[in-house]
Amino acid sequence: MARIGFLGLGNMGGPMARNLLKAGHSLKVFDLSAAAVEKATSAGATAAAKPADAARDVDVIVTMLPAGAHVRSVYLGDDGLIATAAKGTLMIDCSTIDVATAREVIAAATAAGHGMIDAPVSGGVGGAEAGTLTFMVGGADEAFERAKPFLEAMGKNIVHAGGAGNGQAAKICNNMLLGISMIGTCEAFALAEKLGLDHQKLFDISAKASGQCWSLTTYCPVPGPVPTSPANRDYQPGFAVSMMLKDLRLAQEAAAKAGASTPLGAEAAALYEAYENAGHGGADFSGIIRMLRGNAE
Amino acid sequence: MARIGFLGLGNMGGPMARNLLKAGHSLKVFDLSAAAVEKATSAGATAAAKPADAARDVDVIVTMLPAGAHVRSVYLGDDGLIATAAKGTLMIDCSTIDVATAREVIAAATAAGHGMIDAPVSGGVGGAEAGTLTFMVGGADEAFERAKPFLEAMGKNIVHAGGAGNGQAAKICNNMLLGISMIGTCEAFALAEKLGLDHQKLFDISAKASGQCWSLTTYCPVPGPVPTSPANRDYQPGFAVSMMLKDLRLAQEAAAKAGASTPLGAEAAALYEAYENAGHGGADFSGIIRMLRGNAE
Amino acid sequence: MARIGFLGLGNMGGPMARNLLKAGHSLKVFDLSAAAVEKATSAGATAAAKPADAARDVDVIVTMLPAGAHVRSVYLGDDGLIATAAKGTLMIDCSTIDVATAREVIAAATAAGHGMIDAPVSGGVGGAEAGTLTFMVGGADEAFERAKPFLEAMGKNIVHAGGAGNGQAAKICNNMLLGISMIGTCEAFALAEKLGLDHQKLFDISAKASGQCWSLTTYCPVPGPVPTSPANRDYQPGFAVSMMLKDLRLAQEAAAKAGASTPLGAEAAALYEAYENAGHGGADFSGIIRMLRGNAE
Amino acid sequence: MARIGFLGLGNMGGPMARNLLKAGHSLKVFDLSAAAVEKATSAGATAAAKPADAARDVDVIVTMLPAGAHVRSVYLGDDGLIATAAKGTLMIDCSTIDVATAREVIAAATAAGHGMIDAPVSGGVGGAEAGTLTFMVGGADEAFERAKPFLEAMGKNIVHAGGAGNGQAAKICNNMLLGISMIGTCEAFALAEKLGLDHQKLFDISAKASGQCWSLTTYCPVPGPVPTSPANRDYQPGFAVSMMLKDLRLAQEAAAKAGASTPLGAEAAALYEAYENAGHGGADFSGIIRMLRGNAE
Repeated sequence: MARIGFLGLGNMGGPMARNLLKAGHSLKVFDLSAAAVEKATSAGATAAAKPADAARDVDVIVTMLPAGAHVRSVYLGDDGLIATAAKGTLMIDCSTIDVATAREVIAAATAAGHGMIDAPVSGGVGGAEAGTLTFMVGGADEAFERAKPFLEAMGKNIVHAGGAGNGQAAKICNNMLLGISMIGTCEAFALAEKLGLDHQKLFDISAKASGQCWSLTTYCPVPGPVPTSPANRDYQPGFAVSMMLKDLRLAQEAAAKAGASTPLGAEAAALYEAYENAGHGGADFSGIIRMLRGNAE
Repeated sequence: MARIGFLGLGNMGGPMARNLLKAGHSLKVFDLSAAAVEKATSAGATAAAKPADAARDVDVIVTMLPAGAHVRSVYLGDDGLIATAAKGTLMIDCSTIDVATAREVIAAATAAGHGMIDAPVSGGVGGAEAGTLTFMVGGADEAFERAKPFLEAMGKNIVHAGGAGNGQAAKICNNMLLGISMIGTCEAFALAEKLGLDHQKLFDISAKASGQCWSLTTYCPVPGPVPTSPANRDYQPGFAVSMMLKDLRLAQEAAAKAGASTPLGAEAAALYEAYENAGHGGADFSGIIRMLRGNAE
Repeated sequence: MARIGFLGLGNMGGPMARNLLKAGHSLKVFDLSAAAVEKATSAGATAAAKPADAARDVDVIVTMLPAGAHVRSVYLGDDGLIATAAKGTLMIDCSTIDVATAREVIAAATAAGHGMIDAPVSGGVGGAEAGTLTFMVGGADEAFERAKPFLEAMGKNIVHAGGAGNGQAAKICNNMLLGISMIGTCEAFALAEKLGLDHQKLFDISAKASGQCWSLTTYCPVPGPVPTSPANRDYQPGFAVSMMLKDLRLAQEAAAKAGASTPLGAEAAALYEAYENAGHGGADFSGIIRMLRGNAE
Repeated sequence: MARIGFLGLGNMGGPMARNLLKAGHSLKVFDLSAAAVEKATSAGATAAAKPADAARDVDVIVTMLPAGAHVRSVYLGDDGLIATAAKGTLMIDCSTIDVATAREVIAAATAAGHGMIDAPVSGGVGGAEAGTLTFMVGGADEAFERAKPFLEAMGKNIVHAGGAGNGQAAKICNNMLLGISMIGTCEAFALAEKLGLDHQKLFDISAKASGQCWSLTTYCPVPGPVPTSPANRDYQPGFAVSMMLKDLRLAQEAAAKAGASTPLGAEAAALYEAYENAGHGGADFSGIIRMLRGNAE
């Protein structure tokens, strides 16, 4: 069993850490929230006084942080994880951040003799608790192979998307497509309503036709056709608008830096931005159909 | 077996008429193209000298015409099909046209004592020839039930979408979603390319994740992941840009008349318009990835 | 002085008719609203019992109707204005309608020996009352010259934009650009607010720079910089959302028929559609800044 | 006369430095290009061996650099301008960069006892040579007043937009509006062409109507109406697509960070991205009308 330093015990990181404990590993944890740390220590972890302490005397470091700025500040610098950890430590960053920062930090870790991967997740809080997350991984083959058993303790579907940063790349490409197809699905239902076409009829037809997409058949944005979708519980998330917007912004940032033209992705980001501005950042992202219809509030 | 009048023997109508002949029905056909009529008569049909003649002494009328204006001019007026046909004739309009015209013509047919449905198709020329088309049907239950055996002679999947015009409504809602998700899929691949993420990796990941859609998993716009998709044959259609654009315009027209807000549908129409203007109306609609990349020509 | 038949005495048509009376012409008027007719007759007009009656014994016909369908039904047909009026009657359609209908009706009028122009207006109810409207005119030179004195009785700025339908074309091209630049101006202010840049500062800079536009410098969508703009009176129109949306829909319809790619025009239409759906059709069109900010209600 | 350190002698910086020399100031210059330095020294400047050297024994530092990363690396750090310069040095950053970096660097300079402003320019190479640039300035009143005489040696129109970063904010708000209204103007002309409405007619009408904007009346994207506009010389810039795209990306980055919804700004960025990808980054930005028409190459 391995010794693991774990930083970031939020809604996602907390249950992920507990799953590593359950798998028999020993954890040294850090978080700014005393309550989050308390929860982890009561499950068997040891508390680290500061980030760097979690990097000492461990084989593996796992981080789950809100944004690229946090990842950069925790890993880089004189008191950072890269400088502190013993040479050859395996570093797994599960944060969803911008591709450029992911690549910069992995390059620094590699130059210092560590193995490091970016491994953002999908699957939400439910998946984190159940240990059924999907990990999209970028990094060298060797680091990926070393990381696999740890990822399998936290998730079910582990995909190697290529070199450093490609985990982030895969996540934002997928989620940009998700944001677009969800709005497209909402537009199709909003138009159908105005034309007097039943939700269920459109669902039955498009579910088996060329309009089929996950947003329609698994996460249907109107109540009825898919009983488990958030539309059936007044758009309680699920996957919140603010989380979708974060990913769409990362996709737009990456597209701008890389010179990719993504007109519908850009529009989807602007629409979710307006929906969040209207006070709906905490609603499920499928609730954007309400904005199209004009009944956002 | 029934006596059928059939108008419109183009790329789609021609093979549809032949499938009705194969099923044992007798056909009286009309088309402006002598060659098209010749092809049908050599398969056993009788030629009608003008549209109205195809409406005399028949039990059923089937039309497959390019646009709402043709449907209106053929059905309405003193010499139109509705005025000419014997009371109680079953009328099946398979044209893809605007919802408003479909409803207006069906209302006129109904008022004259006929049964009429709108039954636009999907499945392309291949589906028309193989008799595997999907029919999205709008109209009264009784007319739908009467029409079913004839539709089954030409297609495989027959869906009743509700009252008059709802076949058209279902088709444009589905195809608007298709146009959006295809461009979304193209944007995801275009971004992935710039970020150094392999086509196949993105495909493998999104095919099992929340970005999954028919445009990705059945009709993939880059060569490789789905060997049968037009991307593998230099974007030979398949489903041509000009056909997709026609459907997107119908969706926009319906949205404008009905007061539905469809921002991504509107954008998709404008993008396909630019792509057609660049001389690519005959290419497969998945080829729009070339315009996003800047290598349209 | 001329004998004029005038059809359509609404918010715009009413004051336009009164200005023709003031100029000394005799008017025979028709409207579905008895109150509107009453108002015109008390100002000196004679009431016509039905549309066709307004076309008899007159030199000129002026129409101001809501949409292309009304124009078609009033002008065409056995009992229409074209069939009823004496050969050589001058027909002036001031309605804002689709280009295709305008061209079709003018062609019919010309074929019947009349002179006819399309002459949509801008300037709103205030301009109609003050007699300061702008007329954008399409039609033959001769018809334009004949019409000019009558237009000058109702407006101040009379522009000949070319052949039949070009008045409509000019209006929708101009108003599409207006809709786009208004939303653009709103986006610039919304971004400035978030960045801590004062409204007045942005106004002062852009009013003299490359971002200058009528929407900014004459009709500023935030209170302060232009004291007369609707933003200073809680977005009371001015030019209502529903009127802007009508013009944007006409522009999209024309673009779709003609094969023009107008991505921002399409987006502007979808955004105004969403804003109208949220219950703001009666607000001034500059109020869309509230939707961008999320404070639409 | 003042002693000035000047960093960045490119197409813009070169002539700006020469104008400061002409005004009688002494300059110590740095650039990575030996040729650029040579040109400045032959005009009377002294060469500095490295960036920090240009910060020693000067009263004022002026920088004109490509992006935020350059500004950050030149100003910050142990060997940066802020650490090297004598306390109280006036720092003028004329680079066009992201708002966040501008604010971060000015905060660091202020904390170190310097006065600093962000002062991005508009007016292009022509304006830089003629000394007629517009400066949009952000920073404290005192720093602005001290900087004014130096800015006046390089430009004609000096505007104080507020606190630190507001020069950048003003520039991207203005240029986002410019990018939107230029595409809007191009769409209006592209639609007019398809409807048979002459360029000159649309120009004459909209120049005096609600569609009026700088992109139309000063920089008209079709040849004819404004003889000096780049459209008359095959879209030779002028203001290149790649420069417009840079500003649109900065606007989108700022909007994403600040949470502003800018749907048309997002779309404009994606459209210019596609146009640049098609190989037209060096063309004038008004040339995007060619992409809408489908004749980009």
